Amino acid sequence: MPGIVVPFGDDVSAVPLNANEVSVLKTDMLVAQTDVPKGMTLFQAGRKAIVMNVSDFAAKGVAPRAALVSLGLPHSLKSSDLEDIARGLNAGAREYGTYIVGGDTGEACDLVVAVNLFGVSAKTGMMLRTGVHVGDVLAVTGLFGKPAAGLKIIKGGCEATLDVRKSLLNSVCNPVARLQEGLALRGSGAVSGSIDSSDGLAWCLHELSAQSGVGFLVSVLPVAEEVAGFAEQNQLDASELVLYGGEEYELVVTVDPKRWAKAEAAAAAAGGKLLPIGKATRGRRVLLEVGGKRRVIEARGYEHFKGC
Amino acid sequence: MPGIVVPFGDDVSAVPLNANEVSVLKTDMLVAQTDVPKGMTLFQAGRKAIVMNVSDFAAKGVAPRAALVSLGLPHSLKSSDLEDIARGLNAGAREYGTYIVGGDTGEACDLVVAVNLFGVSAKTGMMLRTGVHVGDVLAVTGLFGKPAAGLKIIKGGCEATLDVRKSLLNSVCNPVARLQEGLALRGSGAVSGSIDSSDGLAWCLHELSAQSGVGFLVSVLPVAEEVAGFAEQNQLDASELVLYGGEEYELVVTVDPKRWAKAEAAAAAAGGKLLPIGKATRGRRVLLEVGGKRRVIEARGYEHFKGC
Repeated sequence: MPGIVVPFGDDVSAVPLNANEVSVLKTDMLVAQTDVPKGMTLFQAGRKAIVMNVSDFAAKGVAPRAALVSLGLPHSLKSSDLEDIARGLNAGAREYGTYIVGGDTGEACDLVVAVNLFGVSAKTGMMLRTGVHVGDVLAVTGLFGKPAAGLKIIKGGCEATLDVRKSLLNSVCNPVARLQEGLALRGSGAVSGSIDSSDGLAWCLHELSAQSGVGFLVSVLPVAEEVAGFAEQNQLDASELVLYGGEEYELVVTVDPKRWAKAEAAAAAAGGKLLPIGKATRGRRVLLEVGGKRRVIEARGYEHFKGC
Repeated sequence: MPGIVVPFGDDVSAVPLNANEVSVLKTDMLVAQTDVPKGMTLFQAGRKAIVMNVSDFAAKGVAPRAALVSLGLPHSLKSSDLEDIARGLNAGAREYGTYIVGGDTGEACDLVVAVNLFGVSAKTGMMLRTGVHVGDVLAVTGLFGKPAAGLKIIKGGCEATLDVRKSLLNSVCNPVARLQEGLALRGSGAVSGSIDSSDGLAWCLHELSAQSGVGFLVSVLPVAEEVAGFAEQNQLDASELVLYGGEEYELVVTVDPKRWAKAEAAAAAAGGKLLPIGKATRGRRVLLEVGGKRRVIEARGYEHFKGC
């Protein structure tokens, strides 16, 4: 499409509306075999399908105005199952201030929930993957690794205390999109680049690196407390869970260091937080330096658990 | 959603943009097991997924501005298969003057193509399912029954001459959306109600009847020439193929009789045609009267051929 505002391959697409505004569009499809782990209810699956999409809007700093849903439904579903999915979809939409205004249903071999979000944004100021500058502070809106650890519990073979287990499973079944943080961060004018972390932290960093032509040096691994304990108890590498997990919906942003205080204050005012974890560097390498040791963060992404 | 412009359940959804304009949204999902019959190529399947959605925009008289596509892909697909689907999607989009601006891919048990269309429309003048008045002329943009007959050939057991066979199969594999006709008809200001016929002619009439609170008397059955011959040759009831088929993308509209000439001229100027087939009546009955005999047109819809 000529005159495109958001580069192809960013978290959302945008279509010019007038001189100052664009319509923002996103679609992401939830498929039961890969996106609905054992133990997740259909209500939760419906809600998750919304969260997955809202998170991409959050990363760009755009509020969703309306959602459409295409449902592919297997024969085996009962009408009460469909009601559960619909309630979950609606709950997710209302949670993020939007409405489901239409959609379509059809038959499919597996449950498929394709959500489409629509929003309107000023043409300028959207937080893209392409805006990172060398020297920018790398920051995240929360700690990582809980969904990856939770999925290990679901697959079996790992141990956890009751409290930790509950927290990790909750992160899988009830993910949260950082919409308020994203809107506030954009409003602060301090953010140069942004992406959502649904494909895993390592993958995000490589995406920002490729799109902006910079490298990253991560000096603080943002490990969730429960994940540190869980990794130790099960003799797992916590950094694996943090870097190469996925299905988590934090924002990974870069901030002009002179405006760091503004960005941090904006996230806090939105009820969230912004944690510095490193900086953008020259070159294209994505490195981790903890305890004086440097190692490469690989360009591995989150691999969907296969259930088919 | 408060302040909704297009009633829930119409062909498209609309979200207010400003005092005069709405954004128009549509999603419809193509699933291989039900929407891709034997013999349809992946290129054709991709193109059909676009046509299905464009047809709904056509029925409202709205031009699509952009499309997004969510693809669910089975393991068995090769990368050349994916290229075929993508080429078909792009060909469909360009055919109707729009672009694919983004999307998502994931794994699924069956090929799933969820297309989302976006457009902008004046708030007033959209051709809804709710606007039909008693006495309006009922009209269609083309003749019916070819896809239903084509599907019978694909299933086997029916005969047809080579020419007829080719025409019927072509109607299944290369459907056409009446976008130019829809835009022109809206522009004429003569259309009171409109729907696309993808669920079958009978189903459309019952939908218009329910949404507008009118009945219909169909006095001319719009049988495609090939369908009449095919039905005779195979001892089938042509009216079954015409009324209870589906997967065809004509527009079924109603026109203020005083403005009939305007509507007809608009369709012709767009390179199409508008064929009167009956009128809107008091009450809610949907009747066929041919050769002095009246019978009820049942509220049966198109049933997807099951292949799963």
